[in-house]
Amino acid sequence: MIFILVINAGSSSVKFSLFRLPEKERVIQGSIERIGTEAARLSWQSGSALPWSVPCPVAETGEAISRIAALLKDKERGGIGSIEEIKAVGHRVVHGGDEIHGPVRVTDQIKELIRRYSELAPLHNPMNLLGIEACGREFAQAVQTAVFDTAFHATMPEHAFLYGLPWELYQDCGIRKYGFHGTSHCYAARIAARHLGRRPEELRIITCHLGNGSSVTAVEKGLSVDTSMGFTPLEGLIMGTRCGDIDPAVIHYLYSRKGLPMSRIYELLNNEGGLLGLAGIGSSDFRDIEAASLAGNSRAGSALRAFFHRVRKYIGAYSAIMGGLDALVFTGGIGENSSTVREAVCLGFEGGGMADACLPGVSLDLEANRSCSGPCAAVHSPESLYPVLVVPADEEAEIASQVEELLRLRA
Amino acid sequence: MIFILVINAGSSSVKFSLFRLPEKERVIQGSIERIGTEAARLSWQSGSALPWSVPCPVAETGEAISRIAALLKDKERGGIGSIEEIKAVGHRVVHGGDEIHGPVRVTDQIKELIRRYSELAPLHNPMNLLGIEACGREFAQAVQTAVFDTAFHATMPEHAFLYGLPWELYQDCGIRKYGFHGTSHCYAARIAARHLGRRPEELRIITCHLGNGSSVTAVEKGLSVDTSMGFTPLEGLIMGTRCGDIDPAVIHYLYSRKGLPMSRIYELLNNEGGLLGLAGIGSSDFRDIEAASLAGNSRAGSALRAFFHRVRKYIGAYSAIMGGLDALVFTGGIGENSSTVREAVCLGFEGGGMADACLPGVSLDLEANRSCSGPCAAVHSPESLYPVLVVPADEEAEIASQVEELLRLRA
Repeated sequence: MIFILVINAGSSSVKFSLFRLPEKERVIQGSIERIGTEAARLSWQSGSALPWSVPCPVAETGEAISRIAALLKDKERGGIGSIEEIKAVGHRVVHGGDEIHGPVRVTDQIKELIRRYSELAPLHNPMNLLGIEACGREFAQAVQTAVFDTAFHATMPEHAFLYGLPWELYQDCGIRKYGFHGTSHCYAARIAARHLGRRPEELRIITCHLGNGSSVTAVEKGLSVDTSMGFTPLEGLIMGTRCGDIDPAVIHYLYSRKGLPMSRIYELLNNEGGLLGLAGIGSSDFRDIEAASLAGNSRAGSALRAFFHRVRKYIGAYSAIMGGLDALVFTGGIGENSSTVREAVCLGFEGGGMADACLPGVSLDLEANRSCSGPCAAVHSPESLYPVLVVPADEEAEIASQVEELLRLRA
Repeated sequence: MIFILVINAGSSSVKFSLFRLPEKERVIQGSIERIGTEAARLSWQSGSALPWSVPCPVAETGEAISRIAALLKDKERGGIGSIEEIKAVGHRVVHGGDEIHGPVRVTDQIKELIRRYSELAPLHNPMNLLGIEACGREFAQAVQTAVFDTAFHATMPEHAFLYGLPWELYQDCGIRKYGFHGTSHCYAARIAARHLGRRPEELRIITCHLGNGSSVTAVEKGLSVDTSMGFTPLEGLIMGTRCGDIDPAVIHYLYSRKGLPMSRIYELLNNEGGLLGLAGIGSSDFRDIEAASLAGNSRAGSALRAFFHRVRKYIGAYSAIMGGLDALVFTGGIGENSSTVREAVCLGFEGGGMADACLPGVSLDLEANRSCSGPCAAVHSPESLYPVLVVPADEEAEIASQVEELLRLRA
């Protein structure tokens, strides 16, 4: 048996999924959340067994990886015969700058690169590196590999990634659009092309990854040609707590006229803005905001309409730059699960006296949109000029696929 | 005879145009530039006479207005019989917040409002107010009126003007999208509708005001429903020296990681970014950057492509939210005069290995595009799904029209 372990070491959690080749069946997956607190817990589910969770008060990422390794080595629970069967560990790494275009084996150079881009992803890259180091110890027999969130967007042309800033800021400080969620956009576009029975090279696809963090990507001929997140994951759509696009002068105004310190402003933009800040119901969860809006909370309704409006603008923008659209894909927690979001984005919504219109050329099958499920569902009607598809996000499966391909692993 | 004087008092200049009713013929126009410096000059042109200019070392806006008044009162040069014939002065004012929806008579309340919004337009509103005060003295017989840059955008629906920020920042600090260049967008859309022989209420128009400052507006049924400039004129397109849209985290990065003071960052974004900063040829003039690109300067080429790309994205975004497009209009110094910009925006451009495509549905008459002139020129070909029009900007004429209508002036 050959297994690939996928590790996503975040700022306060480590998630893992173990895939068995060649079918890439997920034999066990789980996470340790709230690392560094008393409340830290290890949760997992294997096969069709019930999910399970136990207290697991670990102090940091390395310790969390050790506990996960112990779980996987456990004959009863781990689902593998011997730890030796794990041939590769695929690490999700957030920031690889413009130097990484695909999955890579982790070398000293790669570690150095992850360290270098820590300045641009201070909450994520250092944790990713800790995960890699710990897995190097715990799964010494396995090849450590890395799949970067930015890699899929490394094909963006210069005119899409340049900001209107002094050239030196790009050249010397690396200030440009990088894009994130690359693994998810790549997966969604690939699954959509496969569903359509077409080669990615023939297609212009827009993938909307809508979740707590959200981004839209223009995928032309299988390559990312523009995306809504930028230098950091703060730019673009209105998100759970992140502001997305704003006039940069707002920051100057808050700092110079309102006297807020920069650290406070950054906190506002990242953690107190988005749907949370607009709706003001104390939750950034889309379902709570939808429910509040339905219950008549007008700010929640305002927040939703502002969110829909931005998604529609990005879809239009990316259709324009690609000269048209061959498929529109929704993915991510909200994109997969909220039929009302897909309806509002595609068909428009009433707001402020404006009857917003359908996206040009689109038509939905409302019934299919409300009941869709499965690995890729079509929710458009026959009159639609392009298909509208729903693809459940699976970054772990995409990472496993990329690692399998990189290492040419065969069961 | 009845005349309307239009005054645009900027940060270091005062521009004026005198219109004779009822034809709204421009009898004299001119400006005093570089106010407060030794190099200050008064330039003017009346009718078919040659342009003229004389040194005019004035210290401030009020003094500049006095010199302009003296010129207009001059029997030989001014073009009017008596100063009494100027029945109204129309002042361009930049920021009226969300309270002003059209032209207004200047009252104490309006002056107070202009003063209040000075915080959001510190370089412009105070000068506009000085111009109003001085004209109140110099042209005491005339009705002082104001036409606000933001007024046309006051119809934007909430979902378009809200940022993804805590609601309190909108409610208590007025942080929202306001939009600018309103008078120009309004004029361009009106002229376009008239050219098409249709009522504005039937049309979805996108107006691209491309100049040293640039913005794009979605005009639905004659009303602005979204625009690319925001809280200030810094947001949106890449401009002469302004950055336009950037990841807001860039500011945090420059401040916290690179140690730049906020005043320096603001200077970079406003005065050292845009085409100036990207191309690095020491000029923000579009013609210079086009010439440098043609001569093989690769950064100039990069700057142009980034500029084109943004315009294309906004056109696509606004087509999407309006559900289609009935006319695309170019105006402003660059929009009117650069056929290559219109070609690159509509038909795409080669960049970074990507063959960018035509905007969906558009087709240009390349010959008409290169040779267009006059008050409204069509530059599309018969196959185009919507007309593409070129309208020379004339904010002064629009201000005169709005003032005439407000006061129901008849010759």
